[in-house]
Amino acid sequence: MAKVCLVIGAGAGIGGNVAKKFAREGYHAALCRRSDEEGMNKLVSAIEDEGGRASAHLLNAVDEGAIEDLIEKIEGNIGSIDVALYNLGSQIGNRSLDNTSLKVFELGWRMATFGLFRLAKSLFPKMVERGGGTLLVTSATASVRGNEGQHSHAASMGGRRMLCQTLNAEYASKGIHVAHILIDGAVDAPDTLGKMLGPDLFQKLRESRGLENDGLLLPEKMAETYFHVAQQHRSAWTHELDLRSFSDLAWWNHAP
Amino acid sequence: MAKVCLVIGAGAGIGGNVAKKFAREGYHAALCRRSDEEGMNKLVSAIEDEGGRASAHLLNAVDEGAIEDLIEKIEGNIGSIDVALYNLGSQIGNRSLDNTSLKVFELGWRMATFGLFRLAKSLFPKMVERGGGTLLVTSATASVRGNEGQHSHAASMGGRRMLCQTLNAEYASKGIHVAHILIDGAVDAPDTLGKMLGPDLFQKLRESRGLENDGLLLPEKMAETYFHVAQQHRSAWTHELDLRSFSDLAWWNHAP
Amino acid sequence: MAKVCLVIGAGAGIGGNVAKKFAREGYHAALCRRSDEEGMNKLVSAIEDEGGRASAHLLNAVDEGAIEDLIEKIEGNIGSIDVALYNLGSQIGNRSLDNTSLKVFELGWRMATFGLFRLAKSLFPKMVERGGGTLLVTSATASVRGNEGQHSHAASMGGRRMLCQTLNAEYASKGIHVAHILIDGAVDAPDTLGKMLGPDLFQKLRESRGLENDGLLLPEKMAETYFHVAQQHRSAWTHELDLRSFSDLAWWNHAP
Amino acid sequence: MAKVCLVIGAGAGIGGNVAKKFAREGYHAALCRRSDEEGMNKLVSAIEDEGGRASAHLLNAVDEGAIEDLIEKIEGNIGSIDVALYNLGSQIGNRSLDNTSLKVFELGWRMATFGLFRLAKSLFPKMVERGGGTLLVTSATASVRGNEGQHSHAASMGGRRMLCQTLNAEYASKGIHVAHILIDGAVDAPDTLGKMLGPDLFQKLRESRGLENDGLLLPEKMAETYFHVAQQHRSAWTHELDLRSFSDLAWWNHAP
Repeated sequence: MAKVCLVIGAGAGIGGNVAKKFAREGYHAALCRRSDEEGMNKLVSAIEDEGGRASAHLLNAVDEGAIEDLIEKIEGNIGSIDVALYNLGSQIGNRSLDNTSLKVFELGWRMATFGLFRLAKSLFPKMVERGGGTLLVTSATASVRGNEGQHSHAASMGGRRMLCQTLNAEYASKGIHVAHILIDGAVDAPDTLGKMLGPDLFQKLRESRGLENDGLLLPEKMAETYFHVAQQHRSAWTHELDLRSFSDLAWWNHAP
Repeated sequence: MAKVCLVIGAGAGIGGNVAKKFAREGYHAALCRRSDEEGMNKLVSAIEDEGGRASAHLLNAVDEGAIEDLIEKIEGNIGSIDVALYNLGSQIGNRSLDNTSLKVFELGWRMATFGLFRLAKSLFPKMVERGGGTLLVTSATASVRGNEGQHSHAASMGGRRMLCQTLNAEYASKGIHVAHILIDGAVDAPDTLGKMLGPDLFQKLRESRGLENDGLLLPEKMAETYFHVAQQHRSAWTHELDLRSFSDLAWWNHAP
Repeated sequence: MAKVCLVIGAGAGIGGNVAKKFAREGYHAALCRRSDEEGMNKLVSAIEDEGGRASAHLLNAVDEGAIEDLIEKIEGNIGSIDVALYNLGSQIGNRSLDNTSLKVFELGWRMATFGLFRLAKSLFPKMVERGGGTLLVTSATASVRGNEGQHSHAASMGGRRMLCQTLNAEYASKGIHVAHILIDGAVDAPDTLGKMLGPDLFQKLRESRGLENDGLLLPEKMAETYFHVAQQHRSAWTHELDLRSFSDLAWWNHAP
Repeated sequence: MAKVCLVIGAGAGIGGNVAKKFAREGYHAALCRRSDEEGMNKLVSAIEDEGGRASAHLLNAVDEGAIEDLIEKIEGNIGSIDVALYNLGSQIGNRSLDNTSLKVFELGWRMATFGLFRLAKSLFPKMVERGGGTLLVTSATASVRGNEGQHSHAASMGGRRMLCQTLNAEYASKGIHVAHILIDGAVDAPDTLGKMLGPDLFQKLRESRGLENDGLLLPEKMAETYFHVAQQHRSAWTHELDLRSFSDLAWWNHAP
C-alpha cells in the first residue's frame, strides 16, 4: 500500500502543486475538491504522466461525515495517510457587517475551522497508532489580524490558528507534526484568487505584479517549503512560518 | 427612556459586578443569563436597593433569534443600549481531542464567536444611527494561545479576538468603541469558575490564593476598568488590554 | 513628605498632561526634561496655579549617573516616588539604513531601552522596601512591528517592551505595577511631533485630522487612562494596553 | 572567487553545523568566533576532510570596527558573502535585576542587537550591488516574551527581532532575504548550553531528554532548515519561523 499525501482543497494553486511535489517524492497524492472533477482529473493525469501516483476525490468538506468517510475510504483502499494538507480557505472578499449574513459567517467557520477539527479528530488516532504523521495547514494573514470587511474570514482563520496550537500541544509529543503556514500575499492561483477576481482582473493583477518578476507567490515554489516542513527531523520541527513574495511588504508593514 | 448597559452573561462574577458599577453610574443595567433567574433577580434587587435601575432577562444566546429579539425588546421597552458587555465564555475545562465531540466544539463557537457576531450585527446599526456606543468583550488567554485540551475554547476565543478586530476596523470611525479585554487568570466568580470546579475545590483555590491576598481577580475591581474603558474619550480609545492579579504570572511566563 | 509622581520626559504633550493629572489628584509632580527649562517652569506654574505641587528638573537621561542621581535627590528632598512615568522616546523620523549612523542607533537604545533599565534598577529596590509602586511606560507601535526606516526606533522600542515584561515578571508579585502603554497614532504634542514636523507641517496635520474632531490623540485625555492604570487594584492590573483615536485605524490595519 | 557563507558565532552547535551544511552545498564557510581558535580549526579541518572549503577567523564582535573589517577582509580575500548567519546570543542564565549590572546589560545589547545592525550596515550595500543575498538570524524565545531573570537577554533579543523586521521592510524588495529563526528550546550545543551549564549538568540534561530520543534540538538537523530557508525562491520567502523538538512544548504552552 502506498504512503499517501491527502490534499483537501486541490485546485491549480497551492493544493495542486503540493500534490505534484509529494507525488514526485514517492507519495500517492489523494486530491480532494468540491467541484471541477475535470480539473482534478487533469492534475491526476499530469502527475501520472510524470510517473507518479494520484487519485481524485470529490468532497464537500462541510457535509456531515464527508471528511470522516473520505479518510476511511482512502486508508482502506489506497494507503496510510502520512501527510495531510488542509488547504481550504474562507476568503470571500471584503464584505461589510451588514452584507455578511449569519449563513455566510457560519459557512466560513465550517470551512476554515470546523473542517480542520474534523480532519484532526478522524485522522490523528490513526497517525498516533502508526507512530506519527504530518498535518500541514495553509493559513492566511487574517489568522493574526482582522481587517475591515473580513468578519467571516478573520474569525474563522483566527479560530483555525488557535486550533493548530491546541492540536500541536496535544499531539507533537505523540509524533504528529502540525504546521501552520501563514500565506501573506496574493498567490498565483487561477482557481481561487482567479475566480474571486474574475479572469480579467486576475490577469491584470498578474501583469501589474510582473509575471516574470515574482510579485505573486508562485505555488510551485511554495510547495518546496511545504515539502521541507513535512520532512523536518523531529528534533527540529517548525510549527509556524510565513511565506510572501520578496517584492511584497509584510502584513505588519502595509495596508490591506 | 434610560441609557442602558446590556450585560450578556450576568452571573455573580464579572457580569454582575459590571452591571452594578454601571447602575451606580446612572445606567439601567439589563442583565441576561441562560438560567438561574433567582440569582439574577437578587442582583437586580441589590442594584435597586442602592437606588439603581436594573432588569433581568432569561436568554439562551445560542437559540436562533434570541439575541436579536432581546435587543429589540430592550430598545423598545427600556431604552437605548449605550454599552453592551458580551461576557459569555466557552471554557469547559481541559478535554482531549477524543473527548471533544463535534457538538461541543460547535457549541463553543456558537457561544464565544457566533453570539458576538449576532450581537454586533443587531446592535451596531442602532448605535451608528445614534452616533456611537461601546461594546466590551470579556476574553481569555485562550484567544492568543492554544493550550492542550483547549480545542473548543481556544478555537472559539481566537475567532472572537479576530472578530473584535474586524468590528473595530469597520466601526471605530463610526463612533463604536470595541474593547477586547483579555482576562489572564482565575476570577473569583462563584457562578463560572465555582461551578466548573465544584464548591470544595473552588473554596480550596480561594484559600490557597489567599482570600485576603488578592490572588484571584476580584470582579468588583475589574468592573472599575471595564467602566473606565467605556468612558474613554474618543481621541484615546483602548482596543485591547489584559487584566491579571499582581501575584500571578502573565500567560507568557507560566504553564497553564 | 509628598507622594511623588516622577515624569521623565515632561514636555507639553503626554508627560506634561500626566503630571497635571497626578498633581490634581494630590501627587507632587516631579517634571524632568533635557532642555527647555522655561517650558517646564511654565508647567510647574500652571500646576501650582491650580493648587497643586510640582518641581522642574533638568535631566539628560543618557548621561552616566544622571537618572540615578535624580532619584536620590527627589527621594531625599521631595518624597517617595510612588509612580514613575518613563516617557522618553527614540523616534527620529524615517531614516534608511545608510542614513542611520552607529551613533544614532546607540543613542536610540540609550534613550528608549537603557534609560528605562537604569530607572528600574535605581527605583525598584526603594519601591519594594515600601511595599510597592507603579511604573508607567509610554511606548510605540514600533515596539511590536518594525517598519521601513525605523531601525533605531523599532530596535530600541522592541527592547523596551521585552524589558517591561521581564520587569513585570520579577516585580509584580513584589507589588510593583509595570504598565506598557502602546500609543498607536499621532499625539497632539507640540514638543515632540510638533518639533519633528516643524510648526507648519504640524499645524497642517492638526487641521487635516480635524482639531475639533479628535483625529489626534489628545494628551489631556490620555492622561485619564494613565491615571486609571496607576490606580487599578492589585487583583486586576493591566500590563499592556493600546491607545488610539477612534478615527484612526489600528496599526495592524494600515500602512505606516 | 568562492561564494561565501559567513557564520558569526561558529561553535560546535548551530554555527558549526550550518557551516558544514553550506560547505557541503558548495559554499566557502567562513567561520568566526571570539575564542577557541583550536575548536574552529577542527571544524575547518572536518569540512576540508569532506572536500569542502572553509576558513577560521577570530572575531570579537563587540570591538569597534571588528565586524566591518572582517567583512572587507573576507570579501577581498575569499569571495562574495552570499549568505550570512548571525548566530551570537546574549543568554547569560537567569539574573535578577539587582544582579544584572549596567555593563552586562549593555554587553547583551552589543552582542545581540548592535552587532547585527553593524553587520547589516556593512554587508547589505554589497549585497544590493550584487542583486541580493541572505541574512539568517538565530533568535530566541526571549525575542517574543520576557521571563523573570532575562532582563539583558530579552531586551536585546526583542531589539534584534524588531531590527530584523525593519531590515526586511527596507531590503526584501532589493533582493535581500532576512530570516528570523526563533529557536524555542534547548539545543544540543556543547559550546554554549554546555558551557553555561557545565559538563556535568549538560550531560545530565542530555540524558534526561534522551540522547536517542531527540529531546534536544539537534543542530545538524536544524542546519537543514537554515539551508532550505536560504534557498527559497524569492516569490515565497519566509521571514520568521520557529524550531523546537517534537517532545517539547511550545513557549506559549509552558513555564520557562
